[in-house]
Amino acid sequence: MAKRAKKKKYVYLFANGKAQGKGTWKELLGGKGAGLAEMTSLGIPVPAGFTITTDVCTEFYKNKRKYPKTLKAEVEAALAKVEKAMEAKFGDPEKPLLLSVRSGARSSMPGMMETVLNIGLTTKTIPGMIARSNNERFVYDAYRRLIMMYSDVVMEKAAGIEPDEDHGIRHQLERELEKMKKARGYKFDTQLTAADLKKLVAIFKKKVVKVLGKPFPDDPMDQLWGGISAVFLSWNGKRAISYRRIEGLPDEWGTAVNVQSMVFGNTGTLSGTGVAFTRNPATGEHSFFGEYLMNAQGEDVVAGIRTPQPINKKQKGNSTLMSLEEEMTPVYRQLVKFQKKLDTHYRDMQDLEFTIEDSKLWMLQTRSGKRNGTAAIRIAVEMVKEKLITKKEALMRVAPHQLDELLHPMVDPAAEKKIRPLAKGLPAGPGGAMGRIVFTADDAEAWANDGKQVILVRNETSPEDVHGMHAAEAILTAKGGMTSHAALVARGWGKCCIVGCGALEIQLKKRTLKVDGITLKEGDWITLNGTRGLVYRGKMDLLSSDPERNPYYKTLMKWADEVRKLGVRTNAEAPEDAALARTFGAQGIGLCRTEHMFFGPERIRAIREMIIAETVEDRRRAVMKLLPYQKKDFMGILKAMAGFPVTIRTLDPPLHEFVTLDRQQTRELARDLGISATRLTARIAQLHELNPMLGHRGCRLGITYPEVTEMQARAIFEAAAELTRQGHKVYPEVMIPLVGTQAELANQREIVERVAREVKKEKGTFPYQVGTMIEVPRACMAADKIAEVAEFFSFGTNDLTQTAFGFSRDDIGGFLPEYLEKKILPDDPFQTLDQEGVGELVAMGVRKGRSTRKNLKIGICGEHGGDPASVEFCHRVGLNYVSCSPYRVPIARLAAAQAVLRK
Amino acid sequence: MAKRAKKKKYVYLFANGKAQGKGTWKELLGGKGAGLAEMTSLGIPVPAGFTITTDVCTEFYKNKRKYPKTLKAEVEAALAKVEKAMEAKFGDPEKPLLLSVRSGARSSMPGMMETVLNIGLTTKTIPGMIARSNNERFVYDAYRRLIMMYSDVVMEKAAGIEPDEDHGIRHQLERELEKMKKARGYKFDTQLTAADLKKLVAIFKKKVVKVLGKPFPDDPMDQLWGGISAVFLSWNGKRAISYRRIEGLPDEWGTAVNVQSMVFGNTGTLSGTGVAFTRNPATGEHSFFGEYLMNAQGEDVVAGIRTPQPINKKQKGNSTLMSLEEEMTPVYRQLVKFQKKLDTHYRDMQDLEFTIEDSKLWMLQTRSGKRNGTAAIRIAVEMVKEKLITKKEALMRVAPHQLDELLHPMVDPAAEKKIRPLAKGLPAGPGGAMGRIVFTADDAEAWANDGKQVILVRNETSPEDVHGMHAAEAILTAKGGMTSHAALVARGWGKCCIVGCGALEIQLKKRTLKVDGITLKEGDWITLNGTRGLVYRGKMDLLSSDPERNPYYKTLMKWADEVRKLGVRTNAEAPEDAALARTFGAQGIGLCRTEHMFFGPERIRAIREMIIAETVEDRRRAVMKLLPYQKKDFMGILKAMAGFPVTIRTLDPPLHEFVTLDRQQTRELARDLGISATRLTARIAQLHELNPMLGHRGCRLGITYPEVTEMQARAIFEAAAELTRQGHKVYPEVMIPLVGTQAELANQREIVERVAREVKKEKGTFPYQVGTMIEVPRACMAADKIAEVAEFFSFGTNDLTQTAFGFSRDDIGGFLPEYLEKKILPDDPFQTLDQEGVGELVAMGVRKGRSTRKNLKIGICGEHGGDPASVEFCHRVGLNYVSCSPYRVPIARLAAAQAVLRK
Repeated sequence: MAKRAKKKKYVYLFANGKAQGKGTWKELLGGKGAGLAEMTSLGIPVPAGFTITTDVCTEFYKNKRKYPKTLKAEVEAALAKVEKAMEAKFGDPEKPLLLSVRSGARSSMPGMMETVLNIGLTTKTIPGMIARSNNERFVYDAYRRLIMMYSDVVMEKAAGIEPDEDHGIRHQLERELEKMKKARGYKFDTQLTAADLKKLVAIFKKKVVKVLGKPFPDDPMDQLWGGISAVFLSWNGKRAISYRRIEGLPDEWGTAVNVQSMVFGNTGTLSGTGVAFTRNPATGEHSFFGEYLMNAQGEDVVAGIRTPQPINKKQKGNSTLMSLEEEMTPVYRQLVKFQKKLDTHYRDMQDLEFTIEDSKLWMLQTRSGKRNGTAAIRIAVEMVKEKLITKKEALMRVAPHQLDELLHPMVDPAAEKKIRPLAKGLPAGPGGAMGRIVFTADDAEAWANDGKQVILVRNETSPEDVHGMHAAEAILTAKGGMTSHAALVARGWGKCCIVGCGALEIQLKKRTLKVDGITLKEGDWITLNGTRGLVYRGKMDLLSSDPERNPYYKTLMKWADEVRKLGVRTNAEAPEDAALARTFGAQGIGLCRTEHMFFGPERIRAIREMIIAETVEDRRRAVMKLLPYQKKDFMGILKAMAGFPVTIRTLDPPLHEFVTLDRQQTRELARDLGISATRLTARIAQLHELNPMLGHRGCRLGITYPEVTEMQARAIFEAAAELTRQGHKVYPEVMIPLVGTQAELANQREIVERVAREVKKEKGTFPYQVGTMIEVPRACMAADKIAEVAEFFSFGTNDLTQTAFGFSRDDIGGFLPEYLEKKILPDDPFQTLDQEGVGELVAMGVRKGRSTRKNLKIGICGEHGGDPASVEFCHRVGLNYVSCSPYRVPIARLAAAQAVLRK
Repeated sequence: MAKRAKKKKYVYLFANGKAQGKGTWKELLGGKGAGLAEMTSLGIPVPAGFTITTDVCTEFYKNKRKYPKTLKAEVEAALAKVEKAMEAKFGDPEKPLLLSVRSGARSSMPGMMETVLNIGLTTKTIPGMIARSNNERFVYDAYRRLIMMYSDVVMEKAAGIEPDEDHGIRHQLERELEKMKKARGYKFDTQLTAADLKKLVAIFKKKVVKVLGKPFPDDPMDQLWGGISAVFLSWNGKRAISYRRIEGLPDEWGTAVNVQSMVFGNTGTLSGTGVAFTRNPATGEHSFFGEYLMNAQGEDVVAGIRTPQPINKKQKGNSTLMSLEEEMTPVYRQLVKFQKKLDTHYRDMQDLEFTIEDSKLWMLQTRSGKRNGTAAIRIAVEMVKEKLITKKEALMRVAPHQLDELLHPMVDPAAEKKIRPLAKGLPAGPGGAMGRIVFTADDAEAWANDGKQVILVRNETSPEDVHGMHAAEAILTAKGGMTSHAALVARGWGKCCIVGCGALEIQLKKRTLKVDGITLKEGDWITLNGTRGLVYRGKMDLLSSDPERNPYYKTLMKWADEVRKLGVRTNAEAPEDAALARTFGAQGIGLCRTEHMFFGPERIRAIREMIIAETVEDRRRAVMKLLPYQKKDFMGILKAMAGFPVTIRTLDPPLHEFVTLDRQQTRELARDLGISATRLTARIAQLHELNPMLGHRGCRLGITYPEVTEMQARAIFEAAAELTRQGHKVYPEVMIPLVGTQAELANQREIVERVAREVKKEKGTFPYQVGTMIEVPRACMAADKIAEVAEFFSFGTNDLTQTAFGFSRDDIGGFLPEYLEKKILPDDPFQTLDQEGVGELVAMGVRKGRSTRKNLKIGICGEHGGDPASVEFCHRVGLNYVSCSPYRVPIARLAAAQAVLRK
């Protein structure tokens, strides 16, 4: 390492239109440094400076916080060139050069690391600065800022001193400043005169010695190295570490340090500073957009004390504020030139910082600008039309989850800034919603029928709440995870939903809700941001959206479809959902659950009769009562998806889900079935399971109660035969759930195929396939055997995640938050497929499955089918399609296209 | 196939001291055919005959029940040679040869397939037979037997006619026979005279025509081919199929058919027939053992109408019956010669059948004799001493589960034959036990304290029943599987236990038990056969056993230890159990659970306090109260196992298991803890989980409550340090349960290692290791990563089976019986490791684990550690040791030795 280090170049100069670095060297120079180098090379005026590379940061931490030996010499050499370029000298009494020291990681970490400005101001250089700027107040203001910042960032934080907040040096100096303002009767800092500031500086210096035990450094090189160290040390500061955890950035990247000549926007009325975007970051419109302030420093623009001015007349609208276009037309024209150059050069919307010092425009930063979903799509599509980027690049420019903004109404971000949320839960269904609180499904339905907007608030939901969930604007639950009942149902409908909001204390009897010290009653208004999992009190503005009217969206999705290899299907069980999913681009149904079809009053009666039956004949008779209903269900869904395959899963949940009855209902049902309530209760008790997730469900039901499979197969095939006769192209695929062994599937397949033969004889022909859901680890291990009897696999990654980890999705709330916080898991594995474990099982299932059946069709129908990272994984392991809830179909389409492009 | 068939030989002759087949060709000739061929070659007098190979059976079923073309000619050629050897002719009026047709599969399937005797008796040959035997009654008796057997087996069953039992031809003919006996005033068949039988034969023939629509065949070749077909068809008869299912024999094997000259033990007083064993099958003693009857056919010996006579004087004892040694000394001497020859030739105890026809001894069968465990061991060890077999062969001669008979008292098999069991459950704890029924753990303890023997009968047991389970002779539960709580605890103590006995209807309040239409009360006696899962009413004789006093057992186990590569440890949590296991040969503890240690009154108080605690400090304080107790526990167990490693698992079960309280207990605990009952109830409710098996347990507890791990580590290490200082050699291994990711283990390991450092500083040094239980599929997939931070793996195959299949062991009762019956699973995967699925996961875990840590120590501590087939698997995949309950240690030792030898 030491040997290699000698050859390494650690410092990259940018000055006078020449840069040693390049815009693409972000790994080495950080984003900021690379941008400064690139702008310099483009001939854009950038204050001269140099970048100390991220390698230095890495070696600094490797070598017990020591710098490489050659660094000092390199810094000094670069500094000499900067002095030459800026025609000033660092520490020079007459023409002093001031420097800024800023962090710059590969990827922006705003506010997470330290910055020190005005380095080089010392008792020796102050007179020179005053002479040069002809502005004594400005110089002393800069000096007092330097002392405040430096003593805090370098002398205290970087030295590892950790006083209480009240006793921190910054706080103490601020108190001195306030004291002086009070004594003078000033309201604003700007009222302080040069004399005041001069005096304040003296007070500050004394305070520094007193508090920190050593004087404020008066040597410019000491100041410079102090600043550099502070930046490197801040890479491992608490804020930066926790930010990296959240954003998933590796600790090994390290930060670069940018040392750059200071330019000042606050030297007088011909100076100013601003930020701008090369295109509108909220709408994507191709027009220059920005804000600035005259006679100000960068921090003033964002601080919110003064109202920034619009950058041009177009943006000004009805504002009475002067625009830069009007106030400093030549500078504005120059800025527009740079804007165009950078937008074109980077072929992306740029976020710019600039400073005007005595009418001279300096560009301080360029980087890809943050934008919302609507803007991202428009910019990407328009840049293709402008021939700046290719279609493929455009597809990579939009993060799939950004499409959510177009698919759901959103809470107005501006409104959200103004109000503190009451609570935070898991963002189970994206979008925003507002409504009055109701606590039961029946209330939700009743209130909605009265024309009221309601939000259904419950501890958790069950299939019996479905009518109320449907009636509600949104669903909020105190328990459950991302694949809980509420989450699954809500996502299926594209409904806003927050689950696992543990802070809620629901008192159902009182019809109240306690949260964050406040008690809310039934009927009170709340607003949910389901995209972020935030609950607000009261009504808030919602921004509506209709993707079908957005031509950019439509163009982008068309391009995505041209590129992607993965099919995208939807999970749906109602014809309306199927139809909706088609408008979102679904190419079939990957999972049509059948159990919810059993909950209508007539049907539940039959299924309960079946459960109670003691002989095979009685059971059969009860089951067959369901045939006409199921057939109608399948007619509807097959017709709605005509032309595409529809994968229908046979009955999956444990039977006790159909007999959760209270005492009264038990008595009624017993009377109805003509048996004693005691016997009924005993039978229901018999169905109780300690771990229903691992119990008598899935194909285990079909094996012990073959008549259920038979009835369902018959319903599917009679529907298919009838529709085929009517000229519809239908492709039912019968999917057997929870298979772990070949024999299980063979058993069920035999029934299905026999019924198919019978129905074909009776009602005419139709195409069909039989396959299975792969959702227990054993099925992945035995996939070769299972594929011998399966025409398709569909990975049920919800259950596979449960069984692979041994995590109950209903109970994970007890430890998942801590797991994520302690980084024991990088993500909720029910949201993003765990590639190391569950993904390995999937990959093995694919490999083994295709080893015995080459053309095995393989899909995924777990919730991961709509998660972009998981979709990419599905593409990589060679799946044929993903299936997800209707509102996630566009997301999956884009993610599937990106997966191809990323490979 | 047709081409190959031409070259194939289908018929193998044995006649005149020469045989075309060999004793080792069981696959081709079946066991019986191979034995007959071998005996013939050994010069032992065997009635001449030939074997039609199992290939014919296979081809018969492949080719739509047609025989290979060449078969007929081969049979005829062989028959000609048989005629020559026996000096008689099939169908010949003067010297007629009679034949038997018998099945003979590779492995014995007693009574499952058909046999036809006396083939060749026709109206033409009867006079010749009478002349030859000089016994008209004997010939007509043989003829009526032929008609009864043939009309049933060949004409009715093989033809696929399925009348009601009452209308079956056999039944109808039997009615005719009874009618005649009644008319004549006879009590026994033997009273029928030749004339009676002659008349009866005529009646039979008419009945056959009437019932079956065609006459009884009078052509000997028709009879022969009818018999052959009947045997082949019976291979796929219901009885044979279900037998193969139960015994796990493949359908593809097929049966051979043995056509053999008839010899008769019932031609008069110089004839007889018998069965014998070359050594005593009950004790293993090396002495000839058998029974015979004069003037009788083989079926009479086993039918139980006449009392068979002992074969020799030694065996006779005090019996007044004559022995063969006395009755026919020359024949006996000849038989002893054959006995010795066969015992030595086969180098195994043989089960022989013989017939004496007019003073001439014929041997009809030799095969390996069935024997019990005690006999198996003695025979094996003695045969080594007799230099007949090697030690290695001896080790293969004893089925590991046969050791159970030596380790537990057994219900006397003779007693069991006489009484029908009340019910059958899962054989969870081997051995026999009898006692009075009690229904609660408290009653069990109270009655036992009064000196009464009790059997605890419950729907299921929980940790709170442990005191009563301990006090009881045996445990019987209506629910649960082979790894339910009751099963695990009972096996740990070597206690007889039957679980999942679904037929029991327990009415706890009434203190009664309904089963099989009978109501048993508290205090009633029952007897359990835990080895077979049978429940009997009343008291039955038990045979006690003490392996330590059995020199053959000790010798065999010594040999096993010389051969085996796998270590054998025990699962134990109490010093007594550890000590017991040492006497059984355990080389350490593979799983010491710690949760049961928390159930003492003082301890449960502390753990409950910990659960209720709201701050980390309170929790810590509560947990630390457990430290002295835990330390004492670990002192005990480490000392009891000194010299060997002890793997201690940190807390595993979900916390709600510690707070199952009724209302009264809740109130008391609340008062005790100084909180409101409502708050306590709320906290307990919060702990409720839908799927506790997949919930907040295992290392998830240690991660969210690090103080628990810390306390346990401290208790282990303080105990280890103290014992080490006292001069004991202790090797604690800290095992973290339910790990799925590297980060989980790393988190817990950090705590354990920190505590180890602290304790070493405070109390002195000690050795230790940290490792993990591999019990979720994800851990197998990520075993390479996990091994980086684990010094050992221990496969927890109970939970791994649960998660791999998605089977809850507590709920599997709902479908497992049907799964086994329908052959969807070959075995209960909780008893015998599922090698295709779970085993693949284990193999992958081993491979991946050792890929990053070459010398990773790997064991298994699931219940499979004591299952012979699973032990073999463990050896094959390269585990270092298996761990099982103390009473299974000898079984595992032998199985481990066999695994080496089998490889």
